[in-house]
Amino acid sequence: MSEFEIQCPVPLARHDIIQIAHGGGGRMSQRLIESVFLSAFANEALANRHDASVIQGNGKLAITTDAFVVTPWRFPGGDIGSLAVHGTVNDLAMAGARPIALSASFILEEGLSVDDLREVVRSMQNAASEAGVPIVTGDTKVVERGKADGLYISTTGIGEVIANTPIGPTSVRPGDAILLSGDVGRHGAAIMTAREGLELNSPIESDAASVHLSALALIDEGIDVHCMRDATRGGLATVLNEISRDSGFGIAVSEDAVPVTEDVRGICELLGLDPLYVACEGRFIAFVPDDQADRAISIMRRFSVSSGTVRIGTVREGRARVTLKTQIGVERVLDLLSGEQLPRIC
Amino acid sequence: MSEFEIQCPVPLARHDIIQIAHGGGGRMSQRLIESVFLSAFANEALANRHDASVIQGNGKLAITTDAFVVTPWRFPGGDIGSLAVHGTVNDLAMAGARPIALSASFILEEGLSVDDLREVVRSMQNAASEAGVPIVTGDTKVVERGKADGLYISTTGIGEVIANTPIGPTSVRPGDAILLSGDVGRHGAAIMTAREGLELNSPIESDAASVHLSALALIDEGIDVHCMRDATRGGLATVLNEISRDSGFGIAVSEDAVPVTEDVRGICELLGLDPLYVACEGRFIAFVPDDQADRAISIMRRFSVSSGTVRIGTVREGRARVTLKTQIGVERVLDLLSGEQLPRIC
Repeated sequence: MSEFEIQCPVPLARHDIIQIAHGGGGRMSQRLIESVFLSAFANEALANRHDASVIQGNGKLAITTDAFVVTPWRFPGGDIGSLAVHGTVNDLAMAGARPIALSASFILEEGLSVDDLREVVRSMQNAASEAGVPIVTGDTKVVERGKADGLYISTTGIGEVIANTPIGPTSVRPGDAILLSGDVGRHGAAIMTAREGLELNSPIESDAASVHLSALALIDEGIDVHCMRDATRGGLATVLNEISRDSGFGIAVSEDAVPVTEDVRGICELLGLDPLYVACEGRFIAFVPDDQADRAISIMRRFSVSSGTVRIGTVREGRARVTLKTQIGVERVLDLLSGEQLPRIC
Repeated sequence: MSEFEIQCPVPLARHDIIQIAHGGGGRMSQRLIESVFLSAFANEALANRHDASVIQGNGKLAITTDAFVVTPWRFPGGDIGSLAVHGTVNDLAMAGARPIALSASFILEEGLSVDDLREVVRSMQNAASEAGVPIVTGDTKVVERGKADGLYISTTGIGEVIANTPIGPTSVRPGDAILLSGDVGRHGAAIMTAREGLELNSPIESDAASVHLSALALIDEGIDVHCMRDATRGGLATVLNEISRDSGFGIAVSEDAVPVTEDVRGICELLGLDPLYVACEGRFIAFVPDDQADRAISIMRRFSVSSGTVRIGTVREGRARVTLKTQIGVERVLDLLSGEQLPRIC
């Protein structure tokens, strides 16, 4: 209950902070919802002011959900709000679905500045507008100081599946070309430098972005996309491992072919990390038939989010594992990490 | 990313606790997902092991989302898991929609016992099975000790709208009968007694339940339902105020007609609360034409969750406010509270 269904904006004081009473469902809750959320997310479905929003849906629908707990919540190239939208839009696109609606639920820590909340909400709305998808319903809860970390956001996305054939690991076939939409590790590197307070000459910007236009263009233009996946938590190496395991085929990748910028490589060396395991939030891999690879690359390169698309490897018969041909020509297994390099990256 | 898409259950140690590495996307994340979530929520859409799940949807879809931060997370009559399912199912039903899929996102605090998590997940799955709706996708994040309160759950529900006419405050008309599905305040009273550690002879059980079968039966059997709303955060008085404000009509309620059990009344007196503002999680109000009220009551009474349905009031022309005819015959305005009586009730 108490969705974003309240009318008649009443301004909050500009320098207010979030109090427990903002989560109680009474007048203060309503004022928060009106002045922060409804005004920013304004759209028809949201305006019906009921517990649920109604949209038109036909055929196959894709659903995805994600919690966002990134720390710090503001980083070069984005914040927790834009990240939540990009992450959700991208998960839909990876399933071959055009995003049609998002929902957002907020857990706010008592003491959060309302100005900061407004900034996050604005950034969410900007990302959603750019992606062309409305935020149709939401919820807000407030927890006591020390029971959250500023704010957490959970988003759910609904999309219409436009792919005629299933897109996923089970459609992957030996011989498939593996395309990567750009350089890896910039989201993780941006978070790390913000977290560690490292001073760089030019800050590394997160790659966080919605990639659905590029991914869906492949389908629209007739490429037989077998699988797509965004290289988020765990980075490129982890998603390649997941797809290898779930498809049952081997994956051979050439280290030389994987773009990593000098500044990302430098930060990773400094912190003892392998960039192949560092999260991206605006990069994806696509598995396509070998004879369609060149055309797929040229389609992806038309979009700025994937202008750096390259082919990084090939699917192989045989054991389901990922092998990396290193720069010195040695082939080694690229395994799953046990724990994590970077907690709270998204 | 890193939805519940992992195969091959690998048992976690029985007395494990949640560690930061369980949220990192590597092997430990996958083990957690396999051994706790996938096995409990098993269903076809979830088993496709991709970033998004696919369901079939046609026509108008209702979408709702809620964050659950209830403390304590276990209470007489339920826990945060069953509550999340009931709350989401009910919000769909209140929009005249039959639930077709749920998603769940978990924020776990480092140090949470895996056994406790299993208990919550089992309880979620039981509630979802009973309600006949699958949990098709999910996500898990882990935050450091002191950055959450055990666990938070955000759920999103998708439903097919079965009502032919819009159900909501704007469809409310003067003369409408207002039906209430049972006694109020038991959820809030159960949480309060658990929170305060009060020892009662017989503990008050929460009313938390999925009410969709009862609510949707009204529509199926041809009642012209104008509005429905579940009386959650802020209780009956708050939702009546919301509907009065959004419909533009007055609402007159008789205090005598509103069922409150003796034990709930006792706890409320002890803690200085008004039961009309205390949250329910398995009670709803329905606005129906006066001449269909008796038939609607008899339909609702067929379901155990609403066997105590009564008529509590009537919609009136004139000023949009809620008036209560008290037991001593005086009419007073039942206003919105400013803050809250009970934070973190759901």
